Amino acid sequence: MSRSTNEQALRNLLAAGRFQQLLGIELVSTDTETQEIVMRLPFKIDFERLPNTGQIHGGVTSALIDVAGDFALIMLFDRPVPTINLRIDFLSMAANTDLIATARVVRAGRSIGVVDIVVTGQAGKQIAIGRANYSTLDR
Amino acid sequence: MSRSTNEQALRNLLAAGRFQQLLGIELVSTDTETQEIVMRLPFKIDFERLPNTGQIHGGVTSALIDVAGDFALIMLFDRPVPTINLRIDFLSMAANTDLIATARVVRAGRSIGVVDIVVTGQAGKQIAIGRANYSTLDR
Amino acid sequence: MSRSTNEQALRNLLAAGRFQQLLGIELVSTDTETQEIVMRLPFKIDFERLPNTGQIHGGVTSALIDVAGDFALIMLFDRPVPTINLRIDFLSMAANTDLIATARVVRAGRSIGVVDIVVTGQAGKQIAIGRANYSTLDR
Amino acid sequence: MSRSTNEQALRNLLAAGRFQQLLGIELVSTDTETQEIVMRLPFKIDFERLPNTGQIHGGVTSALIDVAGDFALIMLFDRPVPTINLRIDFLSMAANTDLIATARVVRAGRSIGVVDIVVTGQAGKQIAIGRANYSTLDR
Repeated sequence: MSRSTNEQALRNLLAAGRFQQLLGIELVSTDTETQEIVMRLPFKIDFERLPNTGQIHGGVTSALIDVAGDFALIMLFDRPVPTINLRIDFLSMAANTDLIATARVVRAGRSIGVVDIVVTGQAGKQIAIGRANYSTLDR
Repeated sequence: MSRSTNEQALRNLLAAGRFQQLLGIELVSTDTETQEIVMRLPFKIDFERLPNTGQIHGGVTSALIDVAGDFALIMLFDRPVPTINLRIDFLSMAANTDLIATARVVRAGRSIGVVDIVVTGQAGKQIAIGRANYSTLDR
Repeated sequence: MSRSTNEQALRNLLAAGRFQQLLGIELVSTDTETQEIVMRLPFKIDFERLPNTGQIHGGVTSALIDVAGDFALIMLFDRPVPTINLRIDFLSMAANTDLIATARVVRAGRSIGVVDIVVTGQAGKQIAIGRANYSTLDR
Repeated sequence: MSRSTNEQALRNLLAAGRFQQLLGIELVSTDTETQEIVMRLPFKIDFERLPNTGQIHGGVTSALIDVAGDFALIMLFDRPVPTINLRIDFLSMAANTDLIATARVVRAGRSIGVVDIVVTGQAGKQIAIGRANYSTLDR
């Protein structure tokens, strides 16, 4: 494992965003060699989709996917990489569980970055998968 | 305009979800004839992407798109219609603005519903467009 | 209607590509004002998905969508605009029918173009919808 | 490796579709255990995007992706599984090369199947990745 030299900078950036903090997204690990990053989102009752179900709203999962994908490329490019587009496939319902997002860079091009993101629950069950494009252009 | 007969039920369902309430998503109007629904999300500083920018995090816009598309089909089917997948294209940055989402049903099939969603800022500028599939199966 | 000044150039480009010719894609009309382009694909038995059904293979529809979206941006930028990604939703089966694709530019940005494409059969029935991103960067 | 018991049936189905034959898609291998299927598409000059480039048109790659994903689920369900939607990300240009598509089932649900498809050229370079949903409903 080749821990990103800027892991603390990534943590600071994550903490600086109010929406990321509202949700409570945490950086777990970075690896510049495999170009992977792992994030965790501890469960909050505020994430509920319907009352008294503990089921996590898809919008929470989508946001986690977007952030994890974004930070995987920020790790490599060390600059803002705005999301161009995002596809999410919901595979199973998550309830009363922390979420773990693993983002892996598929292509780190000069203008487009492509990232695959997998979200699992505590038991390792796949909750959703995402595929996103980010703008890596140095403007 | 043909206001949905269950518009109050839709408002109640929207209010019952904690995550929808955390964001503050409001139902503006429903129309069963055009199969369109309009939602509004008043700006909150908690939506910020980066400090002191007022820029709204893409995860906020994604969640609004998912909810608006979902409720357009709930309006027609009057039962839960879980999101299968979702594509979002971000067109421009939104800052310090309420968001308006207009969701239009493209196909209301017996197993799959397809919905197009457009999000604009207060000035009418397009912020993002979404296209989503929902499960309309009566289980 | 504001016919593209380079409509003949677009026809030549379409005819120059062997795969486009193998399928038989034709340019119907261009409009630089509405940023729309219309293409037609006359039915061929070679498009069949399964024998003796006349049903058109989804790969044919996908290719038509990609080409129509691409040419809508070539009309505006007058240079190659490679496809970055593409989403297609299949809405109904097409059988024994010519296909008409209408591509409308949603965003003609300096690095990314976003295009929506609708494919209908002869009777006007929607067969599929596409949404694609193309690279508009001037390299 | 657990070769599919119906591999010959899959070959026959592939050969029965005229569009699949026009392109020349071949089944290489099936594996019901890993839920993977591999297809090959030998290069033809008819696939050219622009004259005298040998570059393969994206529509060819899209069709291969759709077919490979479809057959991965047909292998498991042994019935037609119509494509609901498809996303393709183009990663690099393919020229003068056979294409290899590896399709892996991500979710084989009772109503929705999710498949990931990777297309590489002869040298193993990634050309495109696809993610598709198919209807697995037993009607």
